[in-house]
Formats: sequence, C-alpha cells, structure tokens
Amino acid sequence: MSVEEVLIEGQWRPATSREHFQALNPTTGESLTQRYPVSEWSDCDRALTAAARAAEELRETSTEVLASFLEAYASAIEQHSEELAKIAAEETALPFAPRLKDVEIPRTVNQLRQAAQAAREGSWAMATLDSKANIRSCFAPLGPIVTIGPNNFPFAFNGAAGGDFAAAIAAGNPVIIKAHPAHPRTTQRLAQLAHQANLDCSLPVGTIQLLYRLKHADGLRLVSDPRVGATGFTGGRQTGLQLKAAADRAGKPIYLEMSSINPVVILPEALAERASAIPDEFCTSCLMGAGQFCTNPGFVVLVDGPQVNDFVSAAQAKFRSTPAGTLLGPAVRAGLTEAVAKLVAAGADLLAGGTPEPGPRVAFANTLLRVSGAKYLTQPDVFQTEMFGASTLFVIAQSTEEAARILCTLEGNLTGTIYTAASPIASNDYRSIAGVLRARVGRLLNNKMPTGVAVSPAMNHGGPFPSTGHPGFTAVGIPAALHRFAMLQCFDNVPDERLPALLRDRNVKNAWRLVDGQWTRADLERSGS
Amino acid sequence: MSVEEVLIEGQWRPATSREHFQALNPTTGESLTQRYPVSEWSDCDRALTAAARAAEELRETSTEVLASFLEAYASAIEQHSEELAKIAAEETALPFAPRLKDVEIPRTVNQLRQAAQAAREGSWAMATLDSKANIRSCFAPLGPIVTIGPNNFPFAFNGAAGGDFAAAIAAGNPVIIKAHPAHPRTTQRLAQLAHQANLDCSLPVGTIQLLYRLKHADGLRLVSDPRVGATGFTGGRQTGLQLKAAADRAGKPIYLEMSSINPVVILPEALAERASAIPDEFCTSCLMGAGQFCTNPGFVVLVDGPQVNDFVSAAQAKFRSTPAGTLLGPAVRAGLTEAVAKLVAAGADLLAGGTPEPGPRVAFANTLLRVSGAKYLTQPDVFQTEMFGASTLFVIAQSTEEAARILCTLEGNLTGTIYTAASPIASNDYRSIAGVLRARVGRLLNNKMPTGVAVSPAMNHGGPFPSTGHPGFTAVGIPAALHRFAMLQCFDNVPDERLPALLRDRNVKNAWRLVDGQWTRADLERSGS
Repeated sequence: MSVEEVLIEGQWRPATSREHFQALNPTTGESLTQRYPVSEWSDCDRALTAAARAAEELRETSTEVLASFLEAYASAIEQHSEELAKIAAEETALPFAPRLKDVEIPRTVNQLRQAAQAAREGSWAMATLDSKANIRSCFAPLGPIVTIGPNNFPFAFNGAAGGDFAAAIAAGNPVIIKAHPAHPRTTQRLAQLAHQANLDCSLPVGTIQLLYRLKHADGLRLVSDPRVGATGFTGGRQTGLQLKAAADRAGKPIYLEMSSINPVVILPEALAERASAIPDEFCTSCLMGAGQFCTNPGFVVLVDGPQVNDFVSAAQAKFRSTPAGTLLGPAVRAGLTEAVAKLVAAGADLLAGGTPEPGPRVAFANTLLRVSGAKYLTQPDVFQTEMFGASTLFVIAQSTEEAARILCTLEGNLTGTIYTAASPIASNDYRSIAGVLRARVGRLLNNKMPTGVAVSPAMNHGGPFPSTGHPGFTAVGIPAALHRFAMLQCFDNVPDERLPALLRDRNVKNAWRLVDGQWTRADLERSGS
Repeated sequence: MSVEEVLIEGQWRPATSREHFQALNPTTGESLTQRYPVSEWSDCDRALTAAARAAEELRETSTEVLASFLEAYASAIEQHSEELAKIAAEETALPFAPRLKDVEIPRTVNQLRQAAQAAREGSWAMATLDSKANIRSCFAPLGPIVTIGPNNFPFAFNGAAGGDFAAAIAAGNPVIIKAHPAHPRTTQRLAQLAHQANLDCSLPVGTIQLLYRLKHADGLRLVSDPRVGATGFTGGRQTGLQLKAAADRAGKPIYLEMSSINPVVILPEALAERASAIPDEFCTSCLMGAGQFCTNPGFVVLVDGPQVNDFVSAAQAKFRSTPAGTLLGPAVRAGLTEAVAKLVAAGADLLAGGTPEPGPRVAFANTLLRVSGAKYLTQPDVFQTEMFGASTLFVIAQSTEEAARILCTLEGNLTGTIYTAASPIASNDYRSIAGVLRARVGRLLNNKMPTGVAVSPAMNHGGPFPSTGHPGFTAVGIPAALHRFAMLQCFDNVPDERLPALLRDRNVKNAWRLVDGQWTRADLERSGS
C-alpha cells in the first residue's frame, strides 16, 4: 500500500506516520484511491526547523526573487489549470467550469500576481521616516507562517496557493501548509508546482513545505511553537477557537476566519421598488456553490410590509425547484443537519428543504426557515447558529426599530447588507439600520449581495469576533492582507548603509513612504541631524 | 472617614466599594492621607454601559470636537503643570523638575496635541478607495477602551492622559481609566481636568470615566466584557499575561507592554574608539530615573577585548558612587530584591549593589552583575530575568559569534542596541549581530542608548512577545498607535452620501488616502461603474 509523500526541507519524502486517510468524491460518495499520511509530530518538528532556517535566509533574499517566484508559480497554475480544476472537481464536487477553471483559478492566479507586484514594489511595508530624529520603521517578515485553508475554496483560499499563502510569501516568510483533508490531491498538485517554481527561482530550501494532516494535539502544538511566526486559518469555529487558544497562550499571532451568517436587511422601500429582482438576487447568491461561501447570506431580516409575503413565496418556490447542489463533503452535510434541527427545535418554521438528500451523493435540500422577530428575540444566540450551505433563516421584523433590536443581538460577522430603494427616498431607515449594523460587520453593503469578495486593496474580508480573531485585519486584499504576517521594525540612529533598502535616503524601489507625515515616492532630503 | 469619588457616567460619585487603599510617599515611606476606593463590579458594570452609549454617540461626533477636546485638555494640563508635577512627585518620588514638570508633562501635552491633529486630519484612518469596484475602507472607532497605565510614567503613560488615552480618544473611542494604585491622586487630578474639558467641549457623557482599583477577578472580567472594544495595558508581565488570557478567551483585542531587558551589545571596535564616552552613556542611561524605564538597558553583552575590563571597572565605580535613586514604590524594591537574588543564585557575580537601601526611603542600591557567556548559555531563561530598576547584567562573550549565540536565546524585547565604531570599519560584526537581534526586538539602535522614546510617527515602542502581546503594533507614535483601537470597516457599493466623510469622492478633510494604489490628497474622480 503506497502512501503519498509530504514535502519537507525541499524534498518529497515519506511521512513519519502511523495512520493515513483518503479523500471522498462527494458526487459518488466513494473514497478516492490515494492514501495520505497523518503526520506524527516529528514531521512538524523537522518542517519547523527547516522553515526557521528558510526564514533567516529569506531576510537576505531580494524581493525581486520573491516576486519572480510568485509569478512563476502563478503561470504554472495557469498552464495546469485544466488538470488542477479536474482534480479539484473530483474532490470537492465544485463545477469544473466555470467555477473552478474559469473563475477560481484565474482569481488565484491574479492574487499571486498582485502579491508579486506588492513584494517587488514595497509600498505594503508602509516605510515611515522621521528625517529630523533619524528614526525609520517599516513592516518586515515575521517568520514561518502556518497556512490552514478551508474546504470551500480549493484554490483561492488553499493554504498552498490562496490569499494567506500569497500574503505570507510576499511579506517574505516561508510557509508550512496544512492541507485541507477534503482535497489533499489538489493541494499536493499545487505544492508540486510551487516546489518546482521554488527550485527554478532559487528560493531557500524549506520556503514551501506541505503536511496533509496532523493529530489534533499536534495542530495545537504547531501554531504555538516558538519557531512559528504566525498562523492563517480559515475554517470552522470550533477548530478555530481551539487553535486560537493554543496560539494565544504562546503569544503567537493567529488570524482566523471562522464563521459568519452575513445578515441581510431588506427594507419595504426596496421591495416596493424591485419586488421581482430582489428575490432573484437573493436566491442566486444563497444557492450558488451549494451555499458554501463564507459570505453566504444565511440570515435575512425582512421588515414587514406589503411585499414581504410575495418575497418569501418567491424564495420558497425557487429553493424548492432548484436541485440541491452537491456538498463539499459529509462534514458539511452533518453540520447542516445539526444546525437546521437546532433552529427547528427552537421554533423556526421550515419553508423548504430541511433534510439530507437520499442516495450516495453528498447533498442537502435547499433550506429556508422563518421566525418572527419576537420569537427570534427570545433566543438570539440559538437563532444565529450558522448553517453552512444553501440555507437561510428569514426573520420577519414588525418594524425597522425591531429590526435594529434584532441586529443588536448579533455576534461579529464578515458582512452586513442593507437593501433599500435605489433611488433616494426621504427615509431614515437606512441610517438607523446602518448605525447598528456597521460596528458588527467588517464589510457593509448596500443593494448588493455579499457573496462576491473582490480582490481589491479596499476589500475587508474580516470582521469582529467571532467572525475572525481580530477586527483590524483582512484576509483578502493586497497590500493589507500582508500586514498579518509582518512585524513592525524600527531603526533608530542606524546609518544609511546599514538600513534595509526600503528605508534608505534614496528610494531605490520607488515605493510609497510616509516621510515626515507626507506620503511620497521621492528620495529623502535629510533636513536635520 | 472620607473616600475619594470615582468618575462614572459624567459624575464624580461615591464608589460601590467595601475596601479602600492609600498611596505611599516613597521618599518618606509613609502613607499619604487620601483614601481611594477598590470598586465592586457594579462600578465597572455601570461604567461599561455608559461607555457603550458614549461609543455610539461618538460615532456621530465630528472629529473636530474630538480634536478640540484633546487640545483643551492639553492646555489644561499645561496650565496646571506646577500643581500636577508636585502631586506626582509626592506619589512617585520622581523629581519635580526637570523630569516631571519640564520633560514628562510637556511630552504628554505634545502627545495630546499630536493626537488632536491626527483626529482632525484623518490620515491615520488609512482611507483606501477602489474607484472601479466602488469599494472603500478605512479604520474606524472600535468601542470603549480600557486604559491601564504603569507606575513609571505618571503622565506620559497614564491611563488618563498618556499615549493610550490620546490614541483611544483620537480614534473616536471613550475610555475607562483604571488608575495605577501608586499614583491615584495624580490620576484623579488628570481625570478632573479631562472631565472639565469633556464638559466644555460637549463630548458625550461617559467618554471619560475613572476607577482607581479593582479586585483581581473584576479586572479580568472588565477586559473581557462584551461591551469593551479593546484594552491598552502597560505594566508587569504577570498581571499582563493574566489580562491577556482573559481578553483572548473573549476575543477582545488587548495591547500589552509587559517587560523588556533591552539587550545592548558593545563591540570591541566601539570601545577601541570611544573608551571613555561609552561607559558614561551607558551609566547615564541605566541610572536615570532610578532605572525605571521600559527601555532601560538591563542586559549588556560585551564582546571581550582589550578595553572590556576598563569598561566594567568604570561602570562599577559609577554605579557605586552614584546615590541610589528613590524607587516608585515597595513593589519595585521587592521585585528587584527577588530578581537580583535569582541571578546571584544562578551564579552571576555581584559587582555593585545588590541590596535594598536601609531606612524608610524606598530604594535599592545601583546594581551591577556579571556572568560569562558560557555560564549564561547554561541557563539563558534565568539570566534574562528582568530587573526593573537601576540594575544591569553584563554578559562577557568570548567572541562576536558567542554574542550572537547569546542573542539567539533571548525572548522578544522592545529594543536592541549595537555599539560599533562610529567611523565605518571593515568588519562584519555589526551585520552578524544585527542579523540575530533584528527579529527579536521592536526597535534596533546603533550607537545610541535605548532610553529615549521619541514621539515620532516612525517610532516603534513595541516588540515581539513577551515584550508586548503583538509584534505589529506600537504604543508610542502617532498615527500608528491609533490603529490598536480601531476596526477595519469596508463599504461596498454604498452611495457617496451614505459614506463617512473620509471616504466620499470629495476629500473634504484633505486627508491622505490610498486611491487605486496611489496615496493622494486629491478628490476622487470616478473612473468606472
């Protein structure tokens, strides 16, 4: 029986392992043939030592080399997009095209290229110069980054190619990739391409390392190891909180994207204006990809009005008539089954779905639930349980004021959305809803569903706890995403020739720098000392 | 028996309290007359509710009002500097002048004015605009900030006037001040002036609140309360780690400055060039303020060479001949006694001091210890124990290479210093030492002692754990210090008139904004959508 090899210290080699696992094809419900090792701690230990050495070597590596690597790797993914999308489609049941081949892979490639550009150009490091005091600072690499990706984006959030990977490398750090066990072959193939690009571009050995799976205790130990710089994690809340507790105890930064129900408030003025368009927008957003998006609209507050019943009926019809998508795996189905049961037990009405689909395919009927605002307010903690999948709870509020009270009970979320009339009307409803929602979400949308997460410098794919672990950082968007994997380094009275290139008088990289309070790309003209 | 009043909900009122405490005059060893309450939880609860309401009102308050408040308060401190310095001198034994009146108070006033300017101007919020996608983001207030200041800077780091206070308010947050119990009257007087300025400028009631002391469990509960936005703490490591654990569990950001021994490496080339100047620089830096600085040089690695014995002898003579300063309080003396005993027990040679001074005055003899590099390396954890006060450990390294190995064992520190020849010489020693030290400290200095912490935008008064709780943030330096007390807020597809002023097309505040990848103060010309 052959077991796949891990990538440690620049070598594909057999894992130290006593267990192995197989991924599943969710479309057939059958196990895939490859066997992947569950590593013992000694694999982590070896990877950590190699990564620590790589981190030191990377400090002496030019950002041009980092950028070349990211670009070479992006091109390799592009060249192999057909093969990669096929592998991922088998492991995740996400459509080969357009989703994987034509949307997610190009997005991933684009992210890597943006990261390359950021590394090359250097403005991300926010060089800050005080010419009088001769004090200078910038963000600098932090050390080995553990990247733990989720099940739902096998490319764009993969620990071996996604946003955390791109940001960690662009900031000058090595990565230790922990694959998601639902798509190990996709991750392995990505890591092979990354490893080849690593060799071609002569990045330090140990810059890219891959483990498939760890024992629970070893995962906690990994994120809190003294050799680690930080961890980027996207996944479920329970695992996230355990990793956070371990990392926090060790004083190690950890950035987590954990859970979000993405409240959407639909005001009567919106339905009065666009009664037929809004149900379509909502259903498309909620049902796409079987609802398995971090920013899926899982919680819709409808402020009661003449069109609400029609909205609910239209959504109900659409949820019932749309075939249930195949889920990423049995864990998603089990999570949905449990969450829906919890909401129904608490008194939500089941308007559509609510049960797993029969047969070997991993699927769950598109599910709609409804509860009154008054009933919601009796158990807000229960009713904001996340249902990860094509499932939404409608909360019918009697008034904008009740809607605001409902929003006040919400935990932190990635997004919050308000549907209003598109043409401005004399109403304070937007203002009163936005006033409550704004502080509770990372991204506020108006008349736009939250499922699109543009890779933009202005994006915030983050939010207050427990949607993430820290309200000041984003996992998507360059340059901001790089700051998670950096430390602030100040140089006080250090002569020019001993400074990093970015902080010298001559701005050789032509980066944006904050010089004596002004952002500029100019060289520094020393005014004092 | 009268007990001083706390400031809650805009009123000076009796605390809910069953215990009280008195501060001590360290110069005489006698208790001061005023009695201050140890609050019960109900005081915290009331303050938190008022602060949460103030936080909502502050979101609607113009930054001009925030700036006016900070400036009015700064002027009030300036006007009362004589009185304030006198009160603080009595409570802390720090010299009335120049230290308190002529250095620390002006620094504090300057910080408040810089914070006012930052609030008014808005560039601190790093507005980021993507004109094509119409996505915009900026930093925004986070919510009530708990400020817990240290014993050693009764003004510049006071929770009621120092860097955390200024940053929290400038970012648009209310503060709940927890006074340091060693200088309650200084803090009370500051809070009175702040409260008056609050009234004069019509900031929301509950923007400034003061508690003197809490029971241990209530302190942990305070920093983890759902109504809190974040906490800023400067103090000892044991308390800091307990607060951190509580806040982390609740997912609440906490910024801690906890401990630092501030390694200084002195290379033979430096002593060869400036044999008499360097001992003076070191002794001045270490002995000033009885050594009670966060960035006090408490750990000096001397690379052995012809001048090392002379350096040690000169320092020894100076430490012995300089009268011991009065300490901030008995806790500092007890900490020094314990730390010195620990180092001596581990085998360090005592070159000077080592014992508390006799008499009622709170003091400890200036203390010098020495250990060989080889012996240090047998117990690096013990030998890097912080001695907060005028105490330093000399570590004599046989070579630059041994010095580097010593530095490799260090925990995170605020600062790291390298003394080299001022005139460049053909040596790789700086490079090899800096290579190891850089990743372990927040601020790297060359030929300058670390005790000066300039209030500069380029300053980093922060560092890797456990010197602070997060390596990406600084407690000193505006605008960066404000980011600790802010959340990232993104607006996606939100019409111009619904955006905060800072993010609108017209840049009314003339703030620096990152527009489509370029920093500019210009208005936005919409290019798309």
